[in-house]
Amino acid sequence: MATDLHTRVRPFEYQAGILTLLDQTLLPGEVRHLDLSTPEEVAEAIRAMRVRGAPAIGIAAAYGVALAARNAEKAKADPRAAALLAADLLQETRPTAVNLRWAMDEMRRAIQASQGRATALEEAALRIHRDDAERCARIAAHGASLFAGGVSVLTHCNTGALATGGVGTALGILRAAQAEGRVGHVFFTETRPHLQGARLTAWELVEDHIPATLIADTAVGALLASGRVQGVVVGADRITARGDVANKIGTYNVAVLAQSHRIPFYVAAPESTLDPTIAHGSEIPIEERSAEEVKTYGGRAVAPAAVSVWNPVFDVTPASLVTAIVTERGVFRPPYNFSDRRRTS
Amino acid sequence: MATDLHTRVRPFEYQAGILTLLDQTLLPGEVRHLDLSTPEEVAEAIRAMRVRGAPAIGIAAAYGVALAARNAEKAKADPRAAALLAADLLQETRPTAVNLRWAMDEMRRAIQASQGRATALEEAALRIHRDDAERCARIAAHGASLFAGGVSVLTHCNTGALATGGVGTALGILRAAQAEGRVGHVFFTETRPHLQGARLTAWELVEDHIPATLIADTAVGALLASGRVQGVVVGADRITARGDVANKIGTYNVAVLAQSHRIPFYVAAPESTLDPTIAHGSEIPIEERSAEEVKTYGGRAVAPAAVSVWNPVFDVTPASLVTAIVTERGVFRPPYNFSDRRRTS
Repeated sequence: MATDLHTRVRPFEYQAGILTLLDQTLLPGEVRHLDLSTPEEVAEAIRAMRVRGAPAIGIAAAYGVALAARNAEKAKADPRAAALLAADLLQETRPTAVNLRWAMDEMRRAIQASQGRATALEEAALRIHRDDAERCARIAAHGASLFAGGVSVLTHCNTGALATGGVGTALGILRAAQAEGRVGHVFFTETRPHLQGARLTAWELVEDHIPATLIADTAVGALLASGRVQGVVVGADRITARGDVANKIGTYNVAVLAQSHRIPFYVAAPESTLDPTIAHGSEIPIEERSAEEVKTYGGRAVAPAAVSVWNPVFDVTPASLVTAIVTERGVFRPPYNFSDRRRTS
Repeated sequence: MATDLHTRVRPFEYQAGILTLLDQTLLPGEVRHLDLSTPEEVAEAIRAMRVRGAPAIGIAAAYGVALAARNAEKAKADPRAAALLAADLLQETRPTAVNLRWAMDEMRRAIQASQGRATALEEAALRIHRDDAERCARIAAHGASLFAGGVSVLTHCNTGALATGGVGTALGILRAAQAEGRVGHVFFTETRPHLQGARLTAWELVEDHIPATLIADTAVGALLASGRVQGVVVGADRITARGDVANKIGTYNVAVLAQSHRIPFYVAAPESTLDPTIAHGSEIPIEERSAEEVKTYGGRAVAPAAVSVWNPVFDVTPASLVTAIVTERGVFRPPYNFSDRRRTS
């Protein structure tokens, strides 16, 4: 394992029946923490994107299941039933990321094994959280090896500590590669409409003193055409058996532009992002969110109220545009065989 | 000539020594007009993008030159010298669009011919304004013929009445094509960072009751991949002799994505946008604007103050990605011979 990475950024912490969650919708203007004590509150926080990022959503939801059991025990009700109900509720909060389903399945196994005992479920959620931190560290180490010589790399959206239980996936790789001198500069998109790049990735990079430059999503083509970027690395919300990648809207734009400039395009995600039940990206459900996300910013109208909006918040990048996929088990190259324990690179 | 197009949208009006200008930075929230009476005020309005769009900038600057002569005459000073000085000042306000240089050259000829007489320069500016309206109408008629059957077409930025002296260039084509039933639906990007799509194109389309849908710039790839769009049409700020096109940042992204989906990509602009002195797009000066345009919206921080930003506001689309270029003289296809009076299509 490479450099011992650390970050000052923490999206959530669980203690004694309270999930303390950094409200990411208020960043970077305000650092406000919310104390959540019910699965309904956690579900609201996920739906409203107070916590977002496929691995982070899974972890937060796992804590939500534990909260349900704890509250039931306190009320002398059945913790097993409450926890199973919470798992169903939380799994429905966002449709595209598959880690959420994976985390809820993990919690259902823990519920079966423990009859829904709250302390057992709290341990299970904490294990998912710690596991993710460990997976992030491995992804970072494997992925950093893809770069050398202080190159500049572009990333999209936020895939850092705010999106995971550790140092991040794609951004974790950039943290490691920067610490090792392999990457000299990070370019990142603002990532409309939710601005996860401008608000969250920027905040993490500033907090961690990593040299970086923000660009508008519209400037991706100009940046790649300028020759200043030698690689692209992004996260994923779901990866199909053949390697199609659902990720934040705009990822597909970047992938097509990267290929047209012969710049390698890497995807980083924990194995919980793999969905072996689906071959083609077209089968992945793509969440569409409200028009207001595009039409307003900070309560101020950006567009006339009367205009129609189409706001899909993920897109699918076909495997043919992906150079390699980095998981905690190594760097995989097409054709993918993710069940192969050996790294294929 | 096709349908007699009209629009309720007017970016400016000149009368009796006052250029009344719609402040486009406040749209769509507020419809406020500014009364400008000096070339310095016009220069400030252009720099601050209160008026924008290559043809509209040229026209506003032409009126600015006339204002200089009028004020000099009032002050018993030399109108010729004042007008020439104003032309130099105004030409330097924005570097990428070539129509501005063209309009200032037109005004310099009028200054020479009239010794800078204010009424002559007012007539010259009005002629540039009326000419542009006429050119827009011709571009619209020629361009509309590219579409048939009520297809859906994507556009980027604002190329409508707000950007020109008439119905617009690319948006003028969409107005005409929609009126003739050739285009059934318009998709348009929000166009970060300045949001000319969300703020201005949306406003024009709503005012003129044209069926349209706004998307984030990040959703262009997903939209084209969905098969819902059969063509793309954009404007231009400068077109080189071989057909490379400088236009609003993000145009190049759209062009690459259009080609990868085999969707025709059209460019519409008056001949004043052609720059025969340049062959390659790489020779076009690309304006970079302040980091604040990306880091704030409506006075509210979108990104941490400490983060670095690269904010080029135009990009270059190579001729190889352009299906055809529409000017007031017709539809031109590569290899381009813009001096050929016959349409090449």
